[in-house]
Amino acid sequence: MLMEYTGLKPEYSAMLKQAYEAMARAYVPYSGFQVGAALLDAEGQTHYGCNVENAAYGPTNCAERTALFRAIADGRSAGEFRAIAVIGDTDGPIAPCGICRQVMVELCAPDTPVIMGNLRGAWSIATVAELLPGAFTPASLNKEEHELT
Amino acid sequence: MLMEYTGLKPEYSAMLKQAYEAMARAYVPYSGFQVGAALLDAEGQTHYGCNVENAAYGPTNCAERTALFRAIADGRSAGEFRAIAVIGDTDGPIAPCGICRQVMVELCAPDTPVIMGNLRGAWSIATVAELLPGAFTPASLNKEEHELT
Amino acid sequence: MLMEYTGLKPEYSAMLKQAYEAMARAYVPYSGFQVGAALLDAEGQTHYGCNVENAAYGPTNCAERTALFRAIADGRSAGEFRAIAVIGDTDGPIAPCGICRQVMVELCAPDTPVIMGNLRGAWSIATVAELLPGAFTPASLNKEEHELT
Amino acid sequence: MLMEYTGLKPEYSAMLKQAYEAMARAYVPYSGFQVGAALLDAEGQTHYGCNVENAAYGPTNCAERTALFRAIADGRSAGEFRAIAVIGDTDGPIAPCGICRQVMVELCAPDTPVIMGNLRGAWSIATVAELLPGAFTPASLNKEEHELT
Repeated sequence: MLMEYTGLKPEYSAMLKQAYEAMARAYVPYSGFQVGAALLDAEGQTHYGCNVENAAYGPTNCAERTALFRAIADGRSAGEFRAIAVIGDTDGPIAPCGICRQVMVELCAPDTPVIMGNLRGAWSIATVAELLPGAFTPASLNKEEHELT
Repeated sequence: MLMEYTGLKPEYSAMLKQAYEAMARAYVPYSGFQVGAALLDAEGQTHYGCNVENAAYGPTNCAERTALFRAIADGRSAGEFRAIAVIGDTDGPIAPCGICRQVMVELCAPDTPVIMGNLRGAWSIATVAELLPGAFTPASLNKEEHELT
Repeated sequence: MLMEYTGLKPEYSAMLKQAYEAMARAYVPYSGFQVGAALLDAEGQTHYGCNVENAAYGPTNCAERTALFRAIADGRSAGEFRAIAVIGDTDGPIAPCGICRQVMVELCAPDTPVIMGNLRGAWSIATVAELLPGAFTPASLNKEEHELT
Repeated sequence: MLMEYTGLKPEYSAMLKQAYEAMARAYVPYSGFQVGAALLDAEGQTHYGCNVENAAYGPTNCAERTALFRAIADGRSAGEFRAIAVIGDTDGPIAPCGICRQVMVELCAPDTPVIMGNLRGAWSIATVAELLPGAFTPASLNKEEHELT
């Protein structure tokens, strides 16, 4: 059972609880390490994600990416997400991996809040830009475009 | 507009049309190459997927994986999918990449049909096992378990 | 200690022994599953690879890919490799994962032999094309180019 | 031709020049975006890397990872690298992607310097820990182990 997230604003606390629901559906036969995510879009709809492992390790997908990819497949646009919450059974608030941060940078505005929690009431918030400082971005690929901005 | 899939059974033809709907939502600023997928589960529900690219290329996710990962996040179980359809604007029927085939091997029964199509009526069907012959499987990782089966 | 590969031609047997040397250097704190690879280039030089795991699973790299990527970084050209050998402690000959097969399709000629072995003398050979039938290839991405060939 | 890296210490400037040599060997038929890397180990040996792309995008490997994976395959140990340099034809110093940062966190000490440059004399330095703040680490996976440290 989840403990309370003291001091966290109710909307974000609710998102961590939604992420916790998705966490139970994680497919983790190799690590046993379940992670859940809940992504809030501009219309107020939530997109759920969990991690899905693979015997070959490399094709494994994390909870955050599952939530982001499915939202795109449902017609949501890059840059229009309001917040993403992630939860796992870690000591402190769970930390998104570098792949997920790179996908957040691609699909979320830099100031999008990422709410990270564990099962025992620990939480922290950082923006997408703070999680991947000086990120490799779409502009990095195209010098000319970058020079125009 | 899609052309007819002559000779393909109606259920699979309908799946390619669903995959085509999802294809329009692909996020492909780098390749411009849109792909869509439709995954049919045991209860007859369809899970949609499209490809979602990334400036760093490696974090890119294909349509087939988007559909599979989201179905797991919605509580579907590995091994219980009935068929998956994939479509793209290729010369012949589109071919799933090796990562997607590895994820299919993990999450689908070996005889699950993969229906591959293009926009001009070309189609082909292969099972998951045929697409990745002699695959690296969960059993490969665990020698003891494998010896018991 | 490796057992003999009865019936395998000496050149390929030697390659499996080279792959076995690289296998000992695998970084596998999560699975404990070591894999080694040896890639033979057109000039007769061998490029070694092992798997390198990651706590986040997704960034994990397999032995075959390590060998192929490093050979490119040393100036070898795509399409000019003569053979690749892979070894692991599996029941039968080890099977390359789907990601590695996709990289082989990109960097090796379709008829390049892949020699797969285990530690107890089991072996098999398949071509790159046989391991990923009807592969997604560079031509798949570019319809026009494809139509010219 | 490379411009001078004014104000950068000579050892790091030399590393960027080594990375530039490797950059020329990049396999980039899809983006045309070449990247090179040079990894310095504890014995003073350099391990070269370049990016290697794939038609399926997802299997693409970056220059930094090529250098790190090959060093492990040559018997170097995680945690023993002295510095890594990365170069590309970007406006400012090139930025490593999130996957590469996750691999650096796994294989390098947190205070390992990452030297980032472009072709026109721009450079910057950050530690591995600074590039992926609050990273998901091996300790994140194993609660018990983490509690002991």
